[in-house]
Amino acid sequence: MGGDFGSDVTIPASLQCLKVNSELTLILVGDEDILKKSLTQALLDYPDRLKIQHASQRVEMDESPSKALKNKKDSSMRVAINLVRDGKADACVSAGNTGALMATARFVLKRIPGIDQVAIISTLPSIYGHTHVLDLGANVNCSAKNLYQFALMGIEVVKAVNNIAAPTVGLLNIGEEDVKGNEQVKEAAKLLKASSLNYIGYVEGNALNAGSKKVDLIVTDGFTGNIALKSIEGAAKMIGTSLKAAFSKTLFSQLAGLITYPVLKSFKQSIDPRLHNGASFLGLRGLVIKSHGGADALAFETAIHLAEIEVEKKVTKKIIEKFEAIAAEKESM
Amino acid sequence: MGGDFGSDVTIPASLQCLKVNSELTLILVGDEDILKKSLTQALLDYPDRLKIQHASQRVEMDESPSKALKNKKDSSMRVAINLVRDGKADACVSAGNTGALMATARFVLKRIPGIDQVAIISTLPSIYGHTHVLDLGANVNCSAKNLYQFALMGIEVVKAVNNIAAPTVGLLNIGEEDVKGNEQVKEAAKLLKASSLNYIGYVEGNALNAGSKKVDLIVTDGFTGNIALKSIEGAAKMIGTSLKAAFSKTLFSQLAGLITYPVLKSFKQSIDPRLHNGASFLGLRGLVIKSHGGADALAFETAIHLAEIEVEKKVTKKIIEKFEAIAAEKESM
Repeated sequence: MGGDFGSDVTIPASLQCLKVNSELTLILVGDEDILKKSLTQALLDYPDRLKIQHASQRVEMDESPSKALKNKKDSSMRVAINLVRDGKADACVSAGNTGALMATARFVLKRIPGIDQVAIISTLPSIYGHTHVLDLGANVNCSAKNLYQFALMGIEVVKAVNNIAAPTVGLLNIGEEDVKGNEQVKEAAKLLKASSLNYIGYVEGNALNAGSKKVDLIVTDGFTGNIALKSIEGAAKMIGTSLKAAFSKTLFSQLAGLITYPVLKSFKQSIDPRLHNGASFLGLRGLVIKSHGGADALAFETAIHLAEIEVEKKVTKKIIEKFEAIAAEKESM
Repeated sequence: MGGDFGSDVTIPASLQCLKVNSELTLILVGDEDILKKSLTQALLDYPDRLKIQHASQRVEMDESPSKALKNKKDSSMRVAINLVRDGKADACVSAGNTGALMATARFVLKRIPGIDQVAIISTLPSIYGHTHVLDLGANVNCSAKNLYQFALMGIEVVKAVNNIAAPTVGLLNIGEEDVKGNEQVKEAAKLLKASSLNYIGYVEGNALNAGSKKVDLIVTDGFTGNIALKSIEGAAKMIGTSLKAAFSKTLFSQLAGLITYPVLKSFKQSIDPRLHNGASFLGLRGLVIKSHGGADALAFETAIHLAEIEVEKKVTKKIIEKFEAIAAEKESM
């Protein structure tokens, strides 16, 4: 029921995913009447793979997380996360209120033992394909240990999504030299250097989209990560606006725009943010994926597809096992 | 002598500025032999307005700031800043090593009494024209008081460049609600609210280039500011690369590129980073402006032009007077 467009987006996206992946079962959580009305045919088409779970409430997009947690115990978001907790679903995908989703997920699923902070990871388009980045806003202040744990969790997502064994990890900083950065970053660099991760050192902001070399995973605190993400969104919007303005300036430029339409379309597709939709909450005992609130059906499909990959590759289980191993190693020392 | 191209860029830029502004006098600081050879005709053309000041050394682009400060006491950078200290020049413009320029400027010019940290301010292109941002990397850790002082200094540059009386000021944060952000940002918000500045509240990263409303000045710490700046550079590079790729994919797209060449050129001009070149060091008892190291002549001209404006509008003097007034007010209380 969440996001700016509710079931108008989530239903078509869900049906498309069911069509493409015959292994997939979806439980749509929300107002039963609304859902049943839209899904009459689909429930016949997918008698075993499409289910409806009623939830009498919905969290508004501007509702405060604490109020949602307290007053909306039967919200679609809460019921969906309960399904994950109870083992009835492998993941929850939501386009709803980010703060409320995070607060509810933390409250219902609890943190994995050994992990101090839950982080948000997603991909950004890059000249090399894409770059995974975390944290994107869950944690305003991060210690070196937090950053290190983010890297440990993040590479499990990168391994799953990119299908590679040893992803490269970079730390976001204001220069590549050792002396650069704040204390947290410098300490985190030491921890990463001493680890078994494929750590390549500090990277600057441009590495997110177009660095001099490919980096699979970039680690940063949630304050910087969120501002970098939004700055990139703003830059893309400005450039898009300028391009549009240039192509509508004169009659000639309008004609040129018509002629180059297929080229511009191919350009737009190459950096389409909808193909990078879906941010995973990492560090919880269950998988929750946040879709952009303004996602359309294609974008929401991408988020569901991300959940499919992470479930198939058992990302949460691998993170739990990794931190269990760390704890066991500490005890034996 | 600084920057990636040395006097090949700084000399043509200087001559163009002398041509355009008949009030301008330039002292080119560097190797006298090299400069004289390139300037034979120009010295005849501008007998009173073009001068050469010899400096026997130059700071390399990758030299450590502390080493430059210790070993390069006759570098072009150091001699140029000495001219500002001695009142022989109103400003120093350099495309050289940023760290060395900052260290030298701090050492030679000293901070303005009452200002705790020197900050770097520059503009980014935006859908509204441009946005001033500081700090862009001088200060990794910033207290609320630092951020507040940045705002006080920054608006003097904005007033001068934009020619407006009461620029709007926003604080960079990960959300617009009061509860968002780290302690420094929250405290700085209180100071700004209580001040006489035209403070509009928190803004997110997208406000740098394309927010929902125009903000004249965005204040942040140097860690976040630098990463946002570099992230935007990376995003622009990625989009440029994708656009180029789309226009070279097929024979049709290559032809389309030829036809739309004037449109694409007009688009490129509208977001030309060379027209935003020049970052001012704020908080020193003298004006120093840093040009991008990779600047071409047009970009370096922009940096000189920025110095002309700040000198004409007496930005440094206004900042000194403002902090004197603050000190006087404190004493009288």
